[in-house]
Amino acid sequence: MTEVQAALADPVGTAAVPDTMRGAVLFGPDDIRVVERAVPLPGPGEVLVKVAMCGTCGTDLKIFGGHFPQTPPFGEFIPGHEWTGTVVALGDTVDEFRIGDKVCIEAHAGCGRCDNCLVGRYTACLNYANPAKGHRATGLTTNGGFAEYAVHNVKALYRMPESVSFEDAVLITTAGTGMYGLDVAGGFVAGENVVVFGPGPVGLMTVQLCKQMAARQVILIGTRPSRLELGRQLGADHVINAREVNPADAVLELTGGEGADLCVEASGGVDTPQQCVEATKRGGKMLFVAFYPDRVSLDLSAVVRKDISMYTSRGEGGNNVKRAVAMAAEGKLRGAELVTHRFGLDDIAEAFRVVRERDGDPMKVVLVP
Amino acid sequence: MTEVQAALADPVGTAAVPDTMRGAVLFGPDDIRVVERAVPLPGPGEVLVKVAMCGTCGTDLKIFGGHFPQTPPFGEFIPGHEWTGTVVALGDTVDEFRIGDKVCIEAHAGCGRCDNCLVGRYTACLNYANPAKGHRATGLTTNGGFAEYAVHNVKALYRMPESVSFEDAVLITTAGTGMYGLDVAGGFVAGENVVVFGPGPVGLMTVQLCKQMAARQVILIGTRPSRLELGRQLGADHVINAREVNPADAVLELTGGEGADLCVEASGGVDTPQQCVEATKRGGKMLFVAFYPDRVSLDLSAVVRKDISMYTSRGEGGNNVKRAVAMAAEGKLRGAELVTHRFGLDDIAEAFRVVRERDGDPMKVVLVP
Amino acid sequence: MTEVQAALADPVGTAAVPDTMRGAVLFGPDDIRVVERAVPLPGPGEVLVKVAMCGTCGTDLKIFGGHFPQTPPFGEFIPGHEWTGTVVALGDTVDEFRIGDKVCIEAHAGCGRCDNCLVGRYTACLNYANPAKGHRATGLTTNGGFAEYAVHNVKALYRMPESVSFEDAVLITTAGTGMYGLDVAGGFVAGENVVVFGPGPVGLMTVQLCKQMAARQVILIGTRPSRLELGRQLGADHVINAREVNPADAVLELTGGEGADLCVEASGGVDTPQQCVEATKRGGKMLFVAFYPDRVSLDLSAVVRKDISMYTSRGEGGNNVKRAVAMAAEGKLRGAELVTHRFGLDDIAEAFRVVRERDGDPMKVVLVP
Amino acid sequence: MTEVQAALADPVGTAAVPDTMRGAVLFGPDDIRVVERAVPLPGPGEVLVKVAMCGTCGTDLKIFGGHFPQTPPFGEFIPGHEWTGTVVALGDTVDEFRIGDKVCIEAHAGCGRCDNCLVGRYTACLNYANPAKGHRATGLTTNGGFAEYAVHNVKALYRMPESVSFEDAVLITTAGTGMYGLDVAGGFVAGENVVVFGPGPVGLMTVQLCKQMAARQVILIGTRPSRLELGRQLGADHVINAREVNPADAVLELTGGEGADLCVEASGGVDTPQQCVEATKRGGKMLFVAFYPDRVSLDLSAVVRKDISMYTSRGEGGNNVKRAVAMAAEGKLRGAELVTHRFGLDDIAEAFRVVRERDGDPMKVVLVP
Repeated sequence: MTEVQAALADPVGTAAVPDTMRGAVLFGPDDIRVVERAVPLPGPGEVLVKVAMCGTCGTDLKIFGGHFPQTPPFGEFIPGHEWTGTVVALGDTVDEFRIGDKVCIEAHAGCGRCDNCLVGRYTACLNYANPAKGHRATGLTTNGGFAEYAVHNVKALYRMPESVSFEDAVLITTAGTGMYGLDVAGGFVAGENVVVFGPGPVGLMTVQLCKQMAARQVILIGTRPSRLELGRQLGADHVINAREVNPADAVLELTGGEGADLCVEASGGVDTPQQCVEATKRGGKMLFVAFYPDRVSLDLSAVVRKDISMYTSRGEGGNNVKRAVAMAAEGKLRGAELVTHRFGLDDIAEAFRVVRERDGDPMKVVLVP
Repeated sequence: MTEVQAALADPVGTAAVPDTMRGAVLFGPDDIRVVERAVPLPGPGEVLVKVAMCGTCGTDLKIFGGHFPQTPPFGEFIPGHEWTGTVVALGDTVDEFRIGDKVCIEAHAGCGRCDNCLVGRYTACLNYANPAKGHRATGLTTNGGFAEYAVHNVKALYRMPESVSFEDAVLITTAGTGMYGLDVAGGFVAGENVVVFGPGPVGLMTVQLCKQMAARQVILIGTRPSRLELGRQLGADHVINAREVNPADAVLELTGGEGADLCVEASGGVDTPQQCVEATKRGGKMLFVAFYPDRVSLDLSAVVRKDISMYTSRGEGGNNVKRAVAMAAEGKLRGAELVTHRFGLDDIAEAFRVVRERDGDPMKVVLVP
Repeated sequence: MTEVQAALADPVGTAAVPDTMRGAVLFGPDDIRVVERAVPLPGPGEVLVKVAMCGTCGTDLKIFGGHFPQTPPFGEFIPGHEWTGTVVALGDTVDEFRIGDKVCIEAHAGCGRCDNCLVGRYTACLNYANPAKGHRATGLTTNGGFAEYAVHNVKALYRMPESVSFEDAVLITTAGTGMYGLDVAGGFVAGENVVVFGPGPVGLMTVQLCKQMAARQVILIGTRPSRLELGRQLGADHVINAREVNPADAVLELTGGEGADLCVEASGGVDTPQQCVEATKRGGKMLFVAFYPDRVSLDLSAVVRKDISMYTSRGEGGNNVKRAVAMAAEGKLRGAELVTHRFGLDDIAEAFRVVRERDGDPMKVVLVP
Repeated sequence: MTEVQAALADPVGTAAVPDTMRGAVLFGPDDIRVVERAVPLPGPGEVLVKVAMCGTCGTDLKIFGGHFPQTPPFGEFIPGHEWTGTVVALGDTVDEFRIGDKVCIEAHAGCGRCDNCLVGRYTACLNYANPAKGHRATGLTTNGGFAEYAVHNVKALYRMPESVSFEDAVLITTAGTGMYGLDVAGGFVAGENVVVFGPGPVGLMTVQLCKQMAARQVILIGTRPSRLELGRQLGADHVINAREVNPADAVLELTGGEGADLCVEASGGVDTPQQCVEATKRGGKMLFVAFYPDRVSLDLSAVVRKDISMYTSRGEGGNNVKRAVAMAAEGKLRGAELVTHRFGLDDIAEAFRVVRERDGDPMKVVLVP
C-alpha cells in the first residue's frame, strides 16, 4: 500500500486498499485482457469503490469492437458502466459518503460548468469526454467497473441501504435511464396508459417504474415469450407479442381506440418508432430510450397531426438514480430477477460471447470481479 | 313521468325516472329542508344521475350558514358537491356514458370558452358561477347532490368500475383535489420526501396518492392521534403529532437536516404554512390545498432565500379525478375507511350537527338519499 | 332578412344581415364554384362574422383535390381557414364581443369535453370533426371563410384593435401556429439561438415571434433568395441558402460549433428534419410545424445521443393567437408584407392556380369576398 | 509579481498582474477599510478578473452591519457581488475565456455536486457557503468585487461584447435575478399582462425584460415619481403611484377587471404581496424577487381560491445572465441609465452612506476600484 492510499484509508480504520488490482483492459478491437493495474486514486470530490458487480450491456459490445467514440486509448481503457460496490476510500472534500457504504452509480458525471450542466442536463454535457474539465462517463470516457476497484465522482454515486442486493443495484442504474426519460417526459404517469416497446433490461425496469408510479395499464410489447412472461411477473398488465399481432392495433384495442398516453421505445428496432406513432393518443407522448442500427423512417406528418411530443434519454440523468434507489429500498424495483448470468472477471470474454450470441437467452449478464 | 323524461329514459330500457324527487333545499341561513322538487333534466352534454351517496365537507358548513358567494337563491339551492351514483338519463349528444354506469364527479365543469378553460385551468374559470356560459360547480353554484337526482356535465363525470364502492367513490372526488395539486406542483414525487400537514380527508387521500406514486417518505402531521393512526394505516411512513413535537424539527430530523422536497398544506391552520416554510428543503415546493379562517403570516424572505415554489389547488381540476379513478380501480386508493358516519337525507340537519360539533370524531360524513 | 336574423342584428342597431350570401362551395374534386347560400346563423356561444379577407394555404390545395379527411360533404362545404372580418351578429350567451368588433381567428374550437380539451390541448381534440359535440375547425371540418359570412365559436375568436389591418390579421392566424409550437416547446427563447427552416408564411411569422421574444440569433434557412431577403427584412439575423451551403454546417459555424438551442422545421421538406438533428445543440429542442409529402428518415440515435426533445404543433392552439394579437397591436408582427396576391371571391380558381403553380412567387394569396 | 502569477499571465502576453491590490475589507460591523491585500490566485476552473466596476445593493448594507450569515471572517472579507471587469489570468483547465475578455457575473457558483446543483438549481445549493466543496457566492460567502481584482468560477462568468459598457454590465447581473424569476415562473410572458411592484434596480430591469420578451402591458407600481418616470422611459406601458391610487384597483381597471397574468414583487414592502394577490388574475402567477423586513401577512385563502402559483428567485440562477447578456448586446437592456452615482474605492464609506440615507435619490451606486 502506498502512503497516499494509507492516508486515504486510515481515517476510518477500514481494511487496507492494495496498490494494484486486476482489471479488464481493452488492448484493441476484440482484444480485452485481464491484467494487473494500479488501483486508481480518488481525486477531490471522488471516492474509490471496491466493485462488487458490473453489468454488461449492448453498448459494451460496440466498445469491445474498438470503434466507440471518445474512449481512453487502447491499453489503458477499462470498460464497464453499470457497476456497484462498497466505498473504500474518500477523496478530498468528500463527506457525502463513508467508507463501507454500499453504492450504485449513474454513469455520467457532468463537468458542472457548461451551459447544459448548469441547468441540470448533465448527460448532455458540452464537455463530454473532457476529464480535465471534470466530465466522467465511467466505462465510456474514463475507466469503469470491469475491475476490482473503480473511482467515481460523488455527483454520480448513490448510497443504498444494506437491504438492496448488488444484483438489484446493477439494475438500478438501468432503471435510471428509464426514470430520467420519464422525468424529461413529465414524470406524471399516474392513471395513464403506458406502452413499453422492448422487454430488455431498460424496458423491464421502465415497466416497473410506471406501474409503481400508478400508471393505469402498462402494456409491454416484444417478440420473445420468455421476456414477455418476465415482464408480466414484474407488473405489466398486458403483454403483446409483436410477432403474433400488430402492436398498434392491440394498443388501440386496449385503450378504447384512443391509443396510449405515453409510448416508451426501448427496443432499438428501426420499425418500432413508427409503431409508437400509431399507438400513441392524440396529444400524447413518445419517449425514446434506445439506439438504432440504422436511420429510422417515420410518418412525421402523423406525429404533427396528432400533436405528439417526443422525448429522449441517453442515460440516467437528472439525479433520477436517487429516485430509483428509494424505490428499490422499499422493494418496489426488482432487478435481481433480470440477472440471468454471472461470470468472474477472468471469464469476461466468455461473458461477452454469451451476450453477443444470446446464448441461453441472457437478460442481464454480470461480472463479479 | 313526463314525456321528455320518458324519451330520455326509453332508449336503453332502464327503469323510469320519476318526475319529482326529494331534495335538501336551502331556504335561508341554517334553514335546510328536505322537500319535493322536479327531477332536473339533463341538457346537451349532460347526464342525469341517481345519487347514491353525497359527502359533506367544511365548505358545506359555510354554505348552510347562508353567506357563501355565488350560490343559487334561497328556496332553490340544493347543496352537495361530493356525490356519486348511477347514470339514468343522457342529454343530447352524450355518448361518453351509458345508462347504468356508476360514476363519480369533479365538482367543477368550466365554461370551456374563457382564457383559463382554453388552456385547461377550468377550476379557475373566468365565468365562474355563470351557468349561461356553461360553468357548473355542482352544489356550489348550481344544484348538487343532497337529493335523489342530480344533473352534471360529462366534462366532470368519470365512469367507475363496478368494483369501486360508492364510499370509495365519494372520496375519489376528494382525492382529485390532492391529485390536481400534485399535478400543478409537477406531479413527479417518486423517490421524494413528502410531508402532508392535516390528516383530514384531503390530507389522507394525498398521503395515499403520494405513497402510491412511489414517494420515498410520506410524513403525516396532525394533532388527533386517531387520525394519525388512520394515516399510518393508509400508508404514511411517519406520523407526527404537532402537539408533542415541533413539526419542522421532526421533518428536518427525518430528512437528514435537509427538509422535505414537498410540503402539502391540507390543514387550514393559520400557523401551518410557516411550519411548511421551515420544513421544506432549499429548492423545494409547497402546495396549499386548504382554506384559512384568517390571514396567514409567513416568513416570505425565507421562502425566497430557499428558492421555494408555492402551488395551490382549489378543487379537483386538470382531469385528475380520471387518474384517481384508475388508481381506485386497482385498489390503490382507499376511501371507504374514511367514511365514519352515514345518514339518510332526512337526517341532513343531524348530519351537519355531527360535522359542526365533531361529534364522534367524524372523518367523512355521508348522506344516502 | 329573416326574423331570426333581424332579432340577432337588432340589439345593437347594426346594418341588417342579408338572408343569403355568396360562398365558394366545393362540389367535388377540383370543382369549386361560387354560389348563393343562406347566411349561417350563430348558435349559442357563436358569432356571425362578415368576412373581410381569407388567406389560402397548402392545405387548401389538398382540400380542393377532394380527398381531405373529415370535411363536410361535397355540395355543402365552404373551405377557408385563415380568415378575418367584423362581427355582425351574436349568438346566445355571447358577451365577449360586440357587433362591429374586428376579429381574427384560430381555426380550431375544441369540443371542450374530451380528455385533451379538458387539459387545454384542443387542437388534439378527441372529438375532432364532430360538430355535434362542439368541435369546429373552420374551413376544415365545418364551413369556413371563402364566403361573405362565416360563423365561429367565441373560443377561437380574438378581438383586434382597429390599428391592425386585415392583411396583418390573416397572418396572425398563421403566427398562432408558430406561437403554439413555441409554447409547447417551452416558450422561453430569450437569449437563445433559434433556427427556422422554411421561409414560408409560418416560418416568417415564427422568425418575427422569436426575434420579438428576444431570441439571440434567429437564423433563417431556405432556398428562394427573395423569401430569404424578406426574412432578413422581418428580423432574421442570418439567412442561409440551403442550395449554396450545408445548412447544419452553417448553423454550427454561427453558434461556435454547438448548434442551435431550438430548430423550428417549417419547410415540410423530407430532408430537413435530419438537417435539424445535425444543427441542434446537445440538450436542445426541435419543433415541427409542417407536414411532409412522404415518410421522413431520421438518425434517431443521434437525437437520443444528443438528448434532444421534439415538439409539434398542428395549428394555432393554447390560446396563442391571443398572444400574437397583442404583439401585432404593438406593431411587433408584420403580416401585410407577406400578402403578395389579392383576388376577389369569383377568382378563387385563379387564386388557387397561382398558389399551385407558384405563379409570380406568391407568399400569401388572399381572397376578398 | 510572483512566479505563479507570471506563469498565469504569460501565455497570452498580457500586462503583468501585480502581487498586491487594494481592497475594501470588512473588519467588523460598520468597519470597512481599504487596505492592501494579495491578489487572489485563480484555481482550476477559475479566472482572475480586474474589476472595472462593482455595484452596491441593499444586501450590502446588511453585510456592512456585520450580521449577515455565512460570510468570511472579519478582517478577511471583501464584499461586493455585482461586479464586472476584464479577465487577466486563467486558472487551470480554463478555455472558456481569454485574457482581455470583458465579463459580467452571476454571484452564485454552485458546488455542482449536491441534489439541487445536479438538477440545475444552483442558487439553492445545499453546500451553500462551503467553498471546499466548490460553492462560491462572490461578495457574500467568498471575497468579491470591492477590490481591484477578484477571482470567480467560469460557471458564473459571462463574456460580453465590447459594445456593452461596464455600467450596463453591472445591471446585467441585476437583470439576471429578474430573468431567473421569470424562468422559474415559466418564462413565456409574450402577450401577457405583467405588473412589476417596486421600481428599484431589479424591478426596472424586469420591466425591460418583460417588455422585450413581448409582454402585452407592463404596469409598474411604486411610490417615487422619479423612479416611475424612469420606468416609463425604460418601457413600462403604465406607471402607478401607490400613494395616489390603490394599486390592485388600478391593475384591475387596466386589465378589464381580470387582473394581471403575472405580478412580480420586487419592492420588499410587507404590504405589497397582498396587493399582488388582489391584482393577479385567476389562474395567474406571482413572483417574489425581494426580501422583507418582517413577516408578511397574506390572504392565502384567496391565493388558493384563485388558483395562483407563486414563484421565487433569490438570485441570478438558471444560466439566465447568459440570456440577459444576449439582450444587452442587442441594446435591449439599458442598465447605464440606472447608475446614478459613481465613487472611487476609497470613498466606499461615503458611497454606502448615500445608499443608506438615499441621499440624492440614488438608484444604483457603483464603485470604480
